[in-house]
Amino acid sequence: MLNYRAPLGTYSWLLRDVLGAEAALDAIYPADLRSPELFDTVLKEAARLCESMLLPCNRDGDEYGCTLLDGAVQAPPGFRAAYNAFVEGGWIGLATPADHGGQGLPFVLNVILHDMIMATNLSFGDYIGLPQAAAKTIGVHASPELREAYLGQIVAGATNATMCMTEPQCGTDIGLVRTKAMPDGDGFALSGTKIFISAGDHDLTPNIVHLVLARLPDAPPGVKGLSLFLCPKLLADGRPNAVKPVRLERKMGYKAAATCEMHFDNAHAWLVGQPNRGLAAIFTMVNTARLLVSLQGLGTAEAAYQAASAYARERRQGRALTGPAEPDAPADPLIVHPDVRRLLLGTRAFTEAGRFIALWFGLQIDISERHPDQERRVAADDLVGLLTPVVKASFSDWGFRSCTDCMQIFGGHGYIRDTGVEQLVRDVRIAQIQEGANGIQALDFIGRKLRSNGGRAWASFLSLVRSDLAAAEGKVEPDHLRLLTDAADQLDAAAKELLSAASEDADWIGSAGVDFQAAVALLMFGWAWIRILSAPGADNAAMHITVATYFFAREFPRLSMHLELARTPPSTLMALAADDF
Amino acid sequence: MLNYRAPLGTYSWLLRDVLGAEAALDAIYPADLRSPELFDTVLKEAARLCESMLLPCNRDGDEYGCTLLDGAVQAPPGFRAAYNAFVEGGWIGLATPADHGGQGLPFVLNVILHDMIMATNLSFGDYIGLPQAAAKTIGVHASPELREAYLGQIVAGATNATMCMTEPQCGTDIGLVRTKAMPDGDGFALSGTKIFISAGDHDLTPNIVHLVLARLPDAPPGVKGLSLFLCPKLLADGRPNAVKPVRLERKMGYKAAATCEMHFDNAHAWLVGQPNRGLAAIFTMVNTARLLVSLQGLGTAEAAYQAASAYARERRQGRALTGPAEPDAPADPLIVHPDVRRLLLGTRAFTEAGRFIALWFGLQIDISERHPDQERRVAADDLVGLLTPVVKASFSDWGFRSCTDCMQIFGGHGYIRDTGVEQLVRDVRIAQIQEGANGIQALDFIGRKLRSNGGRAWASFLSLVRSDLAAAEGKVEPDHLRLLTDAADQLDAAAKELLSAASEDADWIGSAGVDFQAAVALLMFGWAWIRILSAPGADNAAMHITVATYFFAREFPRLSMHLELARTPPSTLMALAADDF
Repeated sequence: MLNYRAPLGTYSWLLRDVLGAEAALDAIYPADLRSPELFDTVLKEAARLCESMLLPCNRDGDEYGCTLLDGAVQAPPGFRAAYNAFVEGGWIGLATPADHGGQGLPFVLNVILHDMIMATNLSFGDYIGLPQAAAKTIGVHASPELREAYLGQIVAGATNATMCMTEPQCGTDIGLVRTKAMPDGDGFALSGTKIFISAGDHDLTPNIVHLVLARLPDAPPGVKGLSLFLCPKLLADGRPNAVKPVRLERKMGYKAAATCEMHFDNAHAWLVGQPNRGLAAIFTMVNTARLLVSLQGLGTAEAAYQAASAYARERRQGRALTGPAEPDAPADPLIVHPDVRRLLLGTRAFTEAGRFIALWFGLQIDISERHPDQERRVAADDLVGLLTPVVKASFSDWGFRSCTDCMQIFGGHGYIRDTGVEQLVRDVRIAQIQEGANGIQALDFIGRKLRSNGGRAWASFLSLVRSDLAAAEGKVEPDHLRLLTDAADQLDAAAKELLSAASEDADWIGSAGVDFQAAVALLMFGWAWIRILSAPGADNAAMHITVATYFFAREFPRLSMHLELARTPPSTLMALAADDF
Repeated sequence: MLNYRAPLGTYSWLLRDVLGAEAALDAIYPADLRSPELFDTVLKEAARLCESMLLPCNRDGDEYGCTLLDGAVQAPPGFRAAYNAFVEGGWIGLATPADHGGQGLPFVLNVILHDMIMATNLSFGDYIGLPQAAAKTIGVHASPELREAYLGQIVAGATNATMCMTEPQCGTDIGLVRTKAMPDGDGFALSGTKIFISAGDHDLTPNIVHLVLARLPDAPPGVKGLSLFLCPKLLADGRPNAVKPVRLERKMGYKAAATCEMHFDNAHAWLVGQPNRGLAAIFTMVNTARLLVSLQGLGTAEAAYQAASAYARERRQGRALTGPAEPDAPADPLIVHPDVRRLLLGTRAFTEAGRFIALWFGLQIDISERHPDQERRVAADDLVGLLTPVVKASFSDWGFRSCTDCMQIFGGHGYIRDTGVEQLVRDVRIAQIQEGANGIQALDFIGRKLRSNGGRAWASFLSLVRSDLAAAEGKVEPDHLRLLTDAADQLDAAAKELLSAASEDADWIGSAGVDFQAAVALLMFGWAWIRILSAPGADNAAMHITVATYFFAREFPRLSMHLELARTPPSTLMALAADDF
């Protein structure tokens, strides 16, 4: 069984001393909503809930999964009580603006909440994250009538919500959506099949609101013909709508998230936003949804690390290579072995810097959405947009690697279900796929973000990195600064090369994508380490230096390799005829 | 559902044209046992069995697993019929010498048999591989009476077999074994608990022979006090012995292999080999057991590749970056995308060269065990011993990566159970752990194999590589030869450096281990590609060149990174205090 403790001290230190969150948010929130004391109180309660309600039902969620019986889905044991506890505490509306019925707290707190949720019960995250996303979309795009009818109850948690995009013939390529919306009375009648609908049906709430991408009768083909609809499970008079789950997917992990195939059979629905502008409405949520998926990687890695480091300190097996460390015991603890430490440090180099990145990112979202100064909003939005694919891909990749590395420390005991670590591996694997598979993130990063507005966001990220490096001089190891300065220059040059090559042969974007993105991620992690190392007030500064030293010695060198691979011509991938695969 | 077809043409070509198996085995087997025609006939029948008997019950093995009921384990549906088919065909004794009751065919054929078994039903492999291993141990070490009583029926498949080593307190550190053997009548009484016993109990055969590591009353502590015992489930008179399964492990995958906790409660047993020489008896099987685990990586990767490449050619989603490839279709097939091709080529760079390596390795085992010329035997044994950890670790690592990469191509469809690819990911994960976790393989490679006999085996491997590179001149791309020549020199120098550093600080062995081993693996794969490219008679020479070009451009560059990481001082891992983890 896993036994996770939320890293509250670290969150608190990052917010206060490393990120200066109170000051960063000063033009956005009143003083009492951004004080370190409030943050600590909120996070302590969030941690209590996650540790006491989510962790205990995480294993049951995996063992029992959800059940589809008589056309209705039951959540696993313990989930309803956990959900109710989150509803009672108002956690769904934590960062929803007060005028949408929420608590109006900074979004960065919601990031930390989800980090803890992912660490204790990844599947449960959907039942909190989806209504948050739906509330945002409805709050921004829906008519006053729809807002009046649904927004409050979604934010309060009385009604849950889903996003219905994927269809059997249409995954990544959302333009292939076929679900039809026919005008019908005061609204529309939806017909079609949606698959992979998370939380598509369940018994945590009586009603569920589905946000559905569909096509109006005369819609143009492709993404420009998509409209967004709101389709409730129960109609206003309490009668069931013509939407139901017809299949529950059986998955590798992530089993307590009810992944449904939903049939819409002339279901009553209402348009959200403008006709044929469904994609724009959906995009309201893309960056935050991808950030939450990133947290699946970060949270599970922390949970795996806590389990594996405890095991490595306790389990005795073999002797240190340099001679018995504890000669009187029958064997030394695993932690004496360099390679066991390598697996643990590799995880920690990710989780420590990743937490900084996640929180910094959360603050940027706060600023980009709510700062009164438009210039500040745009600047933050540039960074959020640019780095969303980088964070999503790198956190999910490193999260998966961390979980499987931590599992390795347990040997055969990690492969059996008892320790709970193999569940983390299976659960987190979804993060590399959902909200855009990581290969798609790379296309988004290079094909779109890197060059949008003449490369403005990329330039602004590099200048942020460079100025933080300059500010850290004298506070951190000069070698680390030099490595990062060189890397920033190299990546800048490589980006220019790449975009120029891509203008001749667009396959460069896909050919270089994943590796170039991985190189940028290493720069971002290196920058995060510099920010951590140059911050004041860490009780354990020496420990941070040791982990950072590991990072620069043993993770950062991968950057050059990724850059070399990114520079390899597309012909090395495209030469083989399709039939020869 | 998976739909694997064994690559029979490739096996045949590798044996005939690349490896010259008939000639390589000429002093060992009579002509009719090493002819290409015989090989083709045997392999065709093996493929038919695997495809028609193992693949269909593979999914059921995962869904139902094994069942422990009333102190007895039942194998999943279909396994008994499949086992009987293998027994009827004499496949367990395929490569067992005729004087031990087997067919006496070359071991290399057994390698190919297991490659196909792993591709179609990884769990099933244990029911074939364990009796093969036990037969070898009994054949070499047991008394004539024990051989007479058990060898024939194990080889014939009438009795199955296990290896009982691990105990709750004792995994990697086998010296911690506590199971006791007390003299008792004509034999011994075994008492103790063994865990993680594959095929520990099942209903495929009435009797099961357990080979058990235990301690005699006055045995010295540690590995020098281990003796090996034979302990049958049923005694000669048909009565049950005092050994039984008390628990069936629930695992991430590999579920049809009955992984049992076994209790021995004064069970009758007989000594195999000399007292306190149990480890030597076990070591008879280590190299071949590790090779079979390597094939778990190779076989599943091939199965995953076949599934993913078919999906990538058929599934339509999005458009080629360079513009619609099939403008009349609603979308292009996935195979137009460079990154999808990268995932597929990464797998194929492994499977194609890996099959060469596996077969070459099989021939070396044939030569090392059976060649009449002792010098030839020793030379082959050197290579087998040296490369066993490299092959085990690299095949299981690359196999896991391949399965998870191929799963990624399916997107969300890969994460649900229907396609069968996620089962491959879960199943193959065991290969990085069992028969010595991969970190242990690295310790074996650097701490033992690299320097044994003054580095004789290492020198002989490098000289093999260099002479094959010289022989390939004029036949393959000169750049590839140059890369490999340089790498061989670099690795040779790095090995010397490393061993010298380790003599000052033994933690270098663990600190550099995994990365140095990974670098050697890349040299080995590069050498394999040169052997493939320079062989005559491939129908598809151009295709091999294309895949090899991918390998040298996009996999081989990792070698430098691994070397750089291997050269990083152990202090980067050892500096953090144990309590700070």
